[in-house]
Amino acid sequence: MSVVVQHIARAEAQVIAGLAECGVATVHEAQGRRGLLASYMRPIFAEAQVAGSAVTISAPPGDNWMLHVAIEQLQPGDIMVLAPTSPCEDGYFGDLLATSAMARGCKGLIIDAGARDIRDLTRMGFPVWSKCISAQGTVKETLGSVNVPVVCANALVQPGDVIVADDDGVCVVRREEAESVLTAARARMVAEEEKRKTLAAGVLGLDLYKMRARLAEKGLKYV
Amino acid sequence: MSVVVQHIARAEAQVIAGLAECGVATVHEAQGRRGLLASYMRPIFAEAQVAGSAVTISAPPGDNWMLHVAIEQLQPGDIMVLAPTSPCEDGYFGDLLATSAMARGCKGLIIDAGARDIRDLTRMGFPVWSKCISAQGTVKETLGSVNVPVVCANALVQPGDVIVADDDGVCVVRREEAESVLTAARARMVAEEEKRKTLAAGVLGLDLYKMRARLAEKGLKYV
Amino acid sequence: MSVVVQHIARAEAQVIAGLAECGVATVHEAQGRRGLLASYMRPIFAEAQVAGSAVTISAPPGDNWMLHVAIEQLQPGDIMVLAPTSPCEDGYFGDLLATSAMARGCKGLIIDAGARDIRDLTRMGFPVWSKCISAQGTVKETLGSVNVPVVCANALVQPGDVIVADDDGVCVVRREEAESVLTAARARMVAEEEKRKTLAAGVLGLDLYKMRARLAEKGLKYV
Amino acid sequence: MSVVVQHIARAEAQVIAGLAECGVATVHEAQGRRGLLASYMRPIFAEAQVAGSAVTISAPPGDNWMLHVAIEQLQPGDIMVLAPTSPCEDGYFGDLLATSAMARGCKGLIIDAGARDIRDLTRMGFPVWSKCISAQGTVKETLGSVNVPVVCANALVQPGDVIVADDDGVCVVRREEAESVLTAARARMVAEEEKRKTLAAGVLGLDLYKMRARLAEKGLKYV
Amino acid sequence: MSVVVQHIARAEAQVIAGLAECGVATVHEAQGRRGLLASYMRPIFAEAQVAGSAVTISAPPGDNWMLHVAIEQLQPGDIMVLAPTSPCEDGYFGDLLATSAMARGCKGLIIDAGARDIRDLTRMGFPVWSKCISAQGTVKETLGSVNVPVVCANALVQPGDVIVADDDGVCVVRREEAESVLTAARARMVAEEEKRKTLAAGVLGLDLYKMRARLAEKGLKYV
Amino acid sequence: MSVVVQHIARAEAQVIAGLAECGVATVHEAQGRRGLLASYMRPIFAEAQVAGSAVTISAPPGDNWMLHVAIEQLQPGDIMVLAPTSPCEDGYFGDLLATSAMARGCKGLIIDAGARDIRDLTRMGFPVWSKCISAQGTVKETLGSVNVPVVCANALVQPGDVIVADDDGVCVVRREEAESVLTAARARMVAEEEKRKTLAAGVLGLDLYKMRARLAEKGLKYV
Repeated sequence: MSVVVQHIARAEAQVIAGLAECGVATVHEAQGRRGLLASYMRPIFAEAQVAGSAVTISAPPGDNWMLHVAIEQLQPGDIMVLAPTSPCEDGYFGDLLATSAMARGCKGLIIDAGARDIRDLTRMGFPVWSKCISAQGTVKETLGSVNVPVVCANALVQPGDVIVADDDGVCVVRREEAESVLTAARARMVAEEEKRKTLAAGVLGLDLYKMRARLAEKGLKYV
Repeated sequence: MSVVVQHIARAEAQVIAGLAECGVATVHEAQGRRGLLASYMRPIFAEAQVAGSAVTISAPPGDNWMLHVAIEQLQPGDIMVLAPTSPCEDGYFGDLLATSAMARGCKGLIIDAGARDIRDLTRMGFPVWSKCISAQGTVKETLGSVNVPVVCANALVQPGDVIVADDDGVCVVRREEAESVLTAARARMVAEEEKRKTLAAGVLGLDLYKMRARLAEKGLKYV
Repeated sequence: MSVVVQHIARAEAQVIAGLAECGVATVHEAQGRRGLLASYMRPIFAEAQVAGSAVTISAPPGDNWMLHVAIEQLQPGDIMVLAPTSPCEDGYFGDLLATSAMARGCKGLIIDAGARDIRDLTRMGFPVWSKCISAQGTVKETLGSVNVPVVCANALVQPGDVIVADDDGVCVVRREEAESVLTAARARMVAEEEKRKTLAAGVLGLDLYKMRARLAEKGLKYV
Repeated sequence: MSVVVQHIARAEAQVIAGLAECGVATVHEAQGRRGLLASYMRPIFAEAQVAGSAVTISAPPGDNWMLHVAIEQLQPGDIMVLAPTSPCEDGYFGDLLATSAMARGCKGLIIDAGARDIRDLTRMGFPVWSKCISAQGTVKETLGSVNVPVVCANALVQPGDVIVADDDGVCVVRREEAESVLTAARARMVAEEEKRKTLAAGVLGLDLYKMRARLAEKGLKYV
Repeated sequence: MSVVVQHIARAEAQVIAGLAECGVATVHEAQGRRGLLASYMRPIFAEAQVAGSAVTISAPPGDNWMLHVAIEQLQPGDIMVLAPTSPCEDGYFGDLLATSAMARGCKGLIIDAGARDIRDLTRMGFPVWSKCISAQGTVKETLGSVNVPVVCANALVQPGDVIVADDDGVCVVRREEAESVLTAARARMVAEEEKRKTLAAGVLGLDLYKMRARLAEKGLKYV
Repeated sequence: MSVVVQHIARAEAQVIAGLAECGVATVHEAQGRRGLLASYMRPIFAEAQVAGSAVTISAPPGDNWMLHVAIEQLQPGDIMVLAPTSPCEDGYFGDLLATSAMARGCKGLIIDAGARDIRDLTRMGFPVWSKCISAQGTVKETLGSVNVPVVCANALVQPGDVIVADDDGVCVVRREEAESVLTAARARMVAEEEKRKTLAAGVLGLDLYKMRARLAEKGLKYV
């Protein structure tokens, strides 16, 4: 049952880079409001904004052995996504693992559990989005799997999917939809820029989006 | 049932400014330890300290339509207070709405749900106190109300009440009590300044507040 | 039942200082993964890293009287540890108490409840690890005890135990084990420094820790 | 600041009795989906279904003194509603207080905190809706108020409002709206009885409520 | 984006019936400890034990329109599985919808949100596993989808997968694995029956499972 | 570090039986409101009321190996108390382990994690107080300890301490205080019986406990 899938398909590098620029909120909207991980997944430091191909890890509670196995599977630009097989908040990941992952070109970690050595990770500039921060150590006794589909923080992540993460949280984009989502996201950014200027000039959303008639029709009363 | 109350009474500008200077902890104490919103309401960035008149919003879960309606009702110095009609953590509010609200002179948002575009809001200096951060988008399908009494994060907020918010959380002051609360808060600040010096000089609270006799009377034993 | 124990044994100052340098994650591992407080205990500002002797406080919910009593018992370098007798998130502690505690040489507060005046505490550089931030005021009506064993955030803390706290959380070290834990922690730091270099050079943990044979034996399949 | 309001208006007994029969879900819908207390308020035993006039209690955390004061204010048919001034889960209420309350004709307790002596309360048939069950004892040191407006479990309750509670939770009805809400609730029950028969006969809601056209118009695709 | 998939494959009826008999804990173990929904999913009444084919529903927060759509897709023996598109605890489902679903032969509902009319549902014998109980009503304004893959309570559910639910919670079995899982589950039940007798006779697990040598080898000390 | 302490002192059987009769709320009060475990510890079925000597278990998250080890240490009348070394909600314990424990005369389990096979355990009459119910299986890979002091659900439990558990939760009594606590608890029960009659006759607590003068002195106003 415990497998390491060594070859996974990845999206194109420039598509991934484009999604990183768009950020989580825009990408999430551009793909029809899907793919967001639970809001308890928070970055350990502010202002990180990354995207990368998911190398997924299914790991037992309190056992970080599979992180070592996963690091060997990393290619530059990848992001590790760890889902414990049952709820856990132990600190699976710290500065030594981050050093090793960075040596492989890893761009970040998404973990539905805890991380530790926060100060070191911050200084190294290695971003982590986690359920919590915990120094609790783990063991290396039980196998899990690498590069199998996982449900992480209530979202399905398949190996090679594109992970986008920033101060707003984490979003997953299906690898095969990455290019079309990027196109939609960029269109959205252009449109938003236009709207931003109009709104900044004092035009109301009620008028910009022509909401007044529909509000009246629904029965809104001004008193 | 869905109404927009267009005219609300507000406290005087200098009273509101005075309450902002006093801050949440002092104001809360000055009005008899009342009016605090639940402690899960946290600022999206540190060091903001504001006060303003509440423009209240009752909105359905996952539906931010009423925010557009509310923005038209804003006067310079107002703070929007959004309470969903049932628990929700969607990201009702982002940088476009903030741009629009700032164009109306709005000083902040208190929302018992989620906010997004955190990095942009931080750069714009638009403070938000929210239950969580979430990129989850919302719809515009169901009406709510603007400027009706709401219960937000376990506190009653009436339109025109003064909202005080800082790193310690959020406190609501009844509009009609704003002036007397300010007087009490200022008196408290003066008294605290005096105590601060005494304590810094090494005098114990036990002596400053003359607690020893009452502690002994209650039965405290030193061993 | 309410007592103040006035004389407690403390660990040696240089042992305590050494533990502070090692930090929470290393100390926790060095003593066999024991002693960590619950992960909801978070610092009110980043980058604080301290250690000190525990002056413990057992206090009723919503009553901070015993903090005043405890401050008199502080010696330079001590850390206060407050456990409410039932779950509470009130703001027991703010800048006045911090001023008084600092005048006694106190290095921080660990509180399984709330703290307030966060901005002031941050500016004063007085670190607090707490369950939450809350401006909610407390009363002074009911006794508790000082320097008795307490369970704080699911960990047993005895007066005089060494508290280590940083961005990763809070760990308690038994006073009588402090020296041996420090020795183990320092050995661990040296070993980690070595490993860090090796991992940074691109050697995999799988090879550094010789994990491949055991993984195969457990049945891990590469596909 | 601590007051006991001795005379409050109550709704008519037969209106209250009617609301009890309708139950929480129906009453909540009948008044426009308002007035529900947070869903964490659960009954200590199943199958209780009551309504009564609210005698409200604002009490400090961990202090049940005001319950004794409130019991004197009870009239037959009343329901006590206790809101702590800050979050608390202590067991404010047990079988002795229930014995006393029952002697006054009290029909139940709504408490945004804990209750205890659950087995006894169940045997006595005294229903309680609470945040939790906890044996944690409380003190009698600090005043609160009786029959003032309170926010209980995120809902505003005014003295004399009608409380309706059953297995679905707790709902509050404004006293002055009680009669009209009852009329609407009864109409709803009649209509539901009709629908129930139709649906039981196999007619689909899609047809009964004529939803197909609107679903198609909104863009629902059958594939 | 909103679709209703009308034809889905289902597992064989006797396989489903067999899985129901085995129950959640056994099925979960038999398929390698996979497929469990989050433990907050609790039955509204005790002693229900069912299995059925999943008819999945992706619905907006606070909007139960898609339940009406889904009921038309039900075949006898199906179980509805509703996942809101963002966290919600509203009461999407009550006795009228249950009446309609039962008329189609539906055997239960799994909902990562709230249910209401608990007393009626209990009397009707219609089992629901939900995140909470809430009378909060919902609207019918926004589309979702029926019979698409959903993540419900942190588990992936595909239309036609077999849902097993009892007092221990809810487990999902891939449709294509249902038969082999049943075989493994039955084998497990037989083996457990044997073990149960041996253990009841006083033989220790340490001996029955021959654990002593491995415990000693790992370093367990008896003192 | 992993040890099994084979000989522990226990309280006298009739003292334990007496504490069981008194129940949790009374025992907790009788020993000065100490010793209560966190209120999230709930019984899997109603109406169980037991007391026994604690056989403690410190176990890794997701690993139930030590339960097998602990069962060998049980004497008739003992209660197992399992504290995971970090937060966990897996189902460590089901009907096979219960069968084995019952064969040794075990009277119940207190576990700060999950239990499963709830229906079977209920039918067997084996009471469990747990943090949650979860079918999630565990492994047998990592050692823990038996009969060492543990912190379980925020309370310190030492091997041989008396555990009292009923519908109100779980309380721990120090072994060496068990007899004196029983004496105090019985006195309390007698006194309560007297008060119960007085209150049932309609005498108010205000009068029975002579509270009126002190309330007035504190400043309570009747309006």
